[in-house]
Formats: sequence, structure tokens, C-alpha cells
Amino acid sequence: MNLSDIKRPTLLVDKLKVIRNIEEMKQKADNNGIILRPHFKTHQSYIIGELFRNRGIDRITVSSVQMAEYFSRSGWKDITIAFPLNMREIDDINKLSGKLELNILISSKDHIKDAAKKLGSAIGFYIKIDTGYHRCGLEYNQLSEINEILTIGGSNASLKFRGFLSHFGNTYKVESEKEILQIYEEGKDRLNQLKLNFIDRFPDTILSVGDTPSCSIVRNFEGIDEIRPGNFVYYDLTQQNIGSCSIENIAVAVACPVIEKNTRRNELLIYGGAVHLSKDFTYNNDKSLTYGTIVRLNETGWIPFTDGSYLKSISQEHGQIHANQEVMSEINEGDLIGVLPAHSCLTANLLKKNTLYF
Amino acid sequence: MNLSDIKRPTLLVDKLKVIRNIEEMKQKADNNGIILRPHFKTHQSYIIGELFRNRGIDRITVSSVQMAEYFSRSGWKDITIAFPLNMREIDDINKLSGKLELNILISSKDHIKDAAKKLGSAIGFYIKIDTGYHRCGLEYNQLSEINEILTIGGSNASLKFRGFLSHFGNTYKVESEKEILQIYEEGKDRLNQLKLNFIDRFPDTILSVGDTPSCSIVRNFEGIDEIRPGNFVYYDLTQQNIGSCSIENIAVAVACPVIEKNTRRNELLIYGGAVHLSKDFTYNNDKSLTYGTIVRLNETGWIPFTDGSYLKSISQEHGQIHANQEVMSEINEGDLIGVLPAHSCLTANLLKKNTLYF
Repeated sequence: MNLSDIKRPTLLVDKLKVIRNIEEMKQKADNNGIILRPHFKTHQSYIIGELFRNRGIDRITVSSVQMAEYFSRSGWKDITIAFPLNMREIDDINKLSGKLELNILISSKDHIKDAAKKLGSAIGFYIKIDTGYHRCGLEYNQLSEINEILTIGGSNASLKFRGFLSHFGNTYKVESEKEILQIYEEGKDRLNQLKLNFIDRFPDTILSVGDTPSCSIVRNFEGIDEIRPGNFVYYDLTQQNIGSCSIENIAVAVACPVIEKNTRRNELLIYGGAVHLSKDFTYNNDKSLTYGTIVRLNETGWIPFTDGSYLKSISQEHGQIHANQEVMSEINEGDLIGVLPAHSCLTANLLKKNTLYF
Repeated sequence: MNLSDIKRPTLLVDKLKVIRNIEEMKQKADNNGIILRPHFKTHQSYIIGELFRNRGIDRITVSSVQMAEYFSRSGWKDITIAFPLNMREIDDINKLSGKLELNILISSKDHIKDAAKKLGSAIGFYIKIDTGYHRCGLEYNQLSEINEILTIGGSNASLKFRGFLSHFGNTYKVESEKEILQIYEEGKDRLNQLKLNFIDRFPDTILSVGDTPSCSIVRNFEGIDEIRPGNFVYYDLTQQNIGSCSIENIAVAVACPVIEKNTRRNELLIYGGAVHLSKDFTYNNDKSLTYGTIVRLNETGWIPFTDGSYLKSISQEHGQIHANQEVMSEINEGDLIGVLPAHSCLTANLLKKNTLYF
């Protein structure tokens, strides 16, 4: 990588770290004899897609119809759109489903009626189940609603029921490995309990789960058929704080030009703001709010500075780094500095057109 | 506008409201005999640019070199890049400055030395002054540093000193008109005090300020030569909370497909998340956190629902609306619903390619 060519905030992707993150997750899935269907919403990049493909991954997850179209164009043939059916995109879904194995999510009777009426080619569907996160989906104990969906979906020639899909997103709100494992175990048990009710009619029912915290921490996936983590490919500070990864696993940093060095306040003003990093934040050990951790860039990657330097504030294009003595003595106006993002999915989305893979 | 064509989160821009917002600010500038140099970072759109041009605006502000390039391509000939000099973009600045009247910001001795050495065509510069916001710039009382910059800049044939430029961004952190006026008055006084020190050498020194809260609330701009507000073109919930505008002035809403209607929790799941709205938030009257206020869409615009419905949570693509009885009885899966954003600049940036002007 040639740092001297970088003029503007640029996402640096360390492919060796990416590959290590992919291989570890694939190994874990293989050890458990389950399917790894990674979520591609984090990287949204055909280049990173190839790194997965080269390691034997041929089924993927996306979060929008447009993302499915994008990855279909780079040759992916088995895609789950892990977002409940948007009935306004039925025509686009029909165009896609003729070209590949496509799975959609159903979470209401209106969805399945619409799907049964308007979807043409053979298409798989999962029922989206809420085991406790309370963002979306039917709750695991709404048996009569789930039964109605299965009755309509099960009797339609172009629809194929795949299984129950859940996202244990509440793992993002806890702070210990123990609590993550509790959420995972409870969610898994609820899905298995649900599955039992329909096992006679649907013996091949798949149970699919997917948050990165669970997938990073759980070792034994007995009772689950498929995992769909996404963030793990890059990881970030939020995952580090949760305990899903260490700082060495974080595979992306944003290279930002240093604009001002303020010796009065021990601050650096960087070109790097909300339109590059997003406004998502996390917390330092001392509970102060941070938009990113500061790292020293070199031609082969980055090394964290000693503790105490972090991105304390951002506006549209500006970032303000609270800098410790090490940073203040080493970095000057015109230099580049690296920022490990709070939330890599949103940062990668914003810097899609300004990414450097090395 | 044809709502039935909308399939995905789409920024709706009400041009009549935009025009009214522009005309009010232009009238205020004209009444005061000062220059309105609007900041185009909010809309980043040549279409909105034309609405300004048609009302006699010919000088603009942007926050990046790339934005200056964009607006140069749509015929703007007098642009201030209101972001301190990024020395890594000197070549791009040189390419631009030959084509138009370009002003840059200088906030350190290294900046002016670099500019004096490397900038080719005639270029204007402002010194960026911090009157209390403490984000960037030299503090108003750093007279010796400012004098050094003026000595280097003043003796260079290709550089022309324009004046002192400040952004009173601390107005975003207060909650009353009185406090905004205090910040404005103090900032204005400090700039005038600064100007006096150099008035013999630079009799044409311009004082330029720009935050939307001040520009919306202040009536008498005596002592100031130029204002650079940006957000006022669209306004948003943050500005409404500050008191810069009323909800009727907000000129943008995001149209979002309704995916799930949850009668157990009185919630709607919408297709509309952090990659559409940004993660910026503000607060409801009861201090609960909100990512947006919910409005009823129709073919000519939108009307707010009665109080009590708001976007309570967002993830990458999902939004969760806490819905009152009115919303719950009126809205169904497959409908569209409108969201007035917390921060319109970041939302417009994210939805640049999915915007509908009506």
C-alpha cells in the first residue's frame, strides 16, 4: 500500500486479517457440521466476496434486494435476503429468483399471501422469528400465526419453506460472555421448541441464526443448522467491547489526513467525519464516548498507539482526536493517521467508493 | 409525485418549502446589506443549487475539494471551501483555482507556508477563527500566530487575504434563543476585536460566520459581512428543537416502506435504517431519544401525525417506529410512511442517489 497516494478519508482493508477471520469462522462451522452463510452487508464488496468463495463458501446472506442483485452480478447463486419481505419490491425479487436460488423472509400473513399470489419462480422462504430481541419477526410462541403462514406457504407450488430464521441482536446490548451465551442458549431452545410443533409436516426445517457476538463466542452449535454472521469479517470496536474479538482481529482502519495539530488542547483535527465513519459510537474503558481508536499507519498496516488517544467528536467532515503525548510528538499536519471504527458495517458502506485493499 | 412508484427509502424534497427557506434567508441578508454565501454541504445537489441561483445567489460554500469540483461542473464560479487546508489536496486545489474564484481556509503557519510555496493561480484565503466552539481554527486571541500567517500570506502574489471566518457551532448545544444570541454576540465581538488589530494593513477584511441557528434567529447582522448557513435549506428536527425553525419549515422527509405492523407492541417495522437516515438522533419533548418524527405522506407532500409516534430505534436497514393509535389504525404493511430526519445533512448525503424533488 502506498500511503503517500492517499488524499482523503480512505478505508484500508487488511486482507490477511480478513482471511484469518473468515477461516476461523469457517473452521468453527465445519467443526460443528453446520452451514456458514455469511452476511455480506458488512463489506458489500465483490472483492471480499471472492475471499469467501476461495475458502469454500457458496451460500450468502444480504440485507436488501439491491445487495442481492449486486452479488448476483458477481456470480453468487444462492442468496438469502435476511430482511422481511418488502412487498413493494416483488417485481425485483421475481427478476432475481429466476437466476439463482433465492430465499426471502416472511413475518406476517400478508407477506405470505402476497408472496403466494405474486411470486413466480421457485423461491425459498424462512419465517422470521423473534426470540427476545424485539426488533422484528413473529414471536417464537405465536404458533397460530406461524401455522397460518405455513398452511398458505406450504400449499403453494412456487414457494418452498426452508425453516426458521432469527437474529439474536440483543447480544449487542450486554457486556459479558456469560450474558451472550445465555441469550444464545435461550434463543436456540425457543427455536427448537418451535420447530418441534411442525416437524411432522416439515422434517427438513432449518434453524438459522446469525449475530457476530454469538457466532464468535459459542463453540458448540448443536441444535442449529446454519449461522449467518456478517460483522466478523472486519470486526470493530463495538465487537471488541462486547468481547467478540481482540483489537488485532479488526481488519479495517480509516486513513485520515491530519489537518490541524492543536498543542493547546492536545488535539488533532482530521479530515474524517460522519460522512466517512458514520455517527455510531462506543465507549472507552473510562466510559468516555468514542467514535474510534487511533492507530499508527505504515505501508503494511497499522499498530495501535498507547492508550489514551481516541476520536472524541465528529461532525459532517471534521473529526477531533483527543491525543496523548505519544501521538502529539509523533504526528504532524499533513500526515495520515488511522482510525479503527466503532461500527465497521456503516463505515464500509460510507466509504464503498474509497476503499483500499492491501 | 407518484408515491406508488417508491419501492425503497427515498428522500422527498419539497421544493416549495426549499424556495421559501431560501427566500427568507436571502431577504434577511439583503435587509442587512450582507452577502449570503450558502453552504451547499447540506443538499450537495445541482438541482437545489439552481433554486439558489434563480434567486440571485452566485457565491457558495462547500466543505470539501470534491464538492467544489462537483459544483464547478454545474457552473458555480465563486466557491469557498470552508474546511481548513488539507495539504494532501494541493494539486486538486490548483486544478480548480484556475477555473473559478476559489477561497480556502488557513489555520496554521504550516498551511500558509505550504500554500505560499505550492499554490499556483490566484486564490483567496480566510483565516479560520475559533471564537468558542473549540473544534478547529486559531483562537481569536492568538494574535502572534495570526500575524505570522498574514505576513507570509500578505507578501505572496498568488494569495489574497479575504478575512476571518468562523463557525459558531456551539449554538447547536444550547436550548434557548437567548443562549444562541449570546453565543452569536460574543463571537461577533471577538471577530471585530480581532479585525481591528489588522485593519490598517487589510482594510477590506471580511467577517464571515455561518451556523444555521444564529442565521435563523439573529435579525440584525451589523458588524458581520457574510453569512454561510447550510442546513436552513432543508432544516430538520435538531433545528426545530433548537428553535431555528418550526416543523412546517422542514423541507425533506424520507419515504419508507412499512414492512411489519406489530399490534402487540404498537410498532411498525420500516425499511429505513442507518444507511438511509444516519445514526444521528435528537430528543422528543419527553426526552426520549428519536431518529425521526413520523408523517403521513400524500401526493403533494406530508402532514405530521398527532404527537406520540417516532422512530425509536434503527439498525443498518431496519427502523422501528413507536406508533400511536392514529398511526396504528391508518397504516398497514405495504404502505409508505414518512420520517422527518434528525439531521438532514447526513440523510441527504446517504440518499443522494435516491432523491425525489417535487
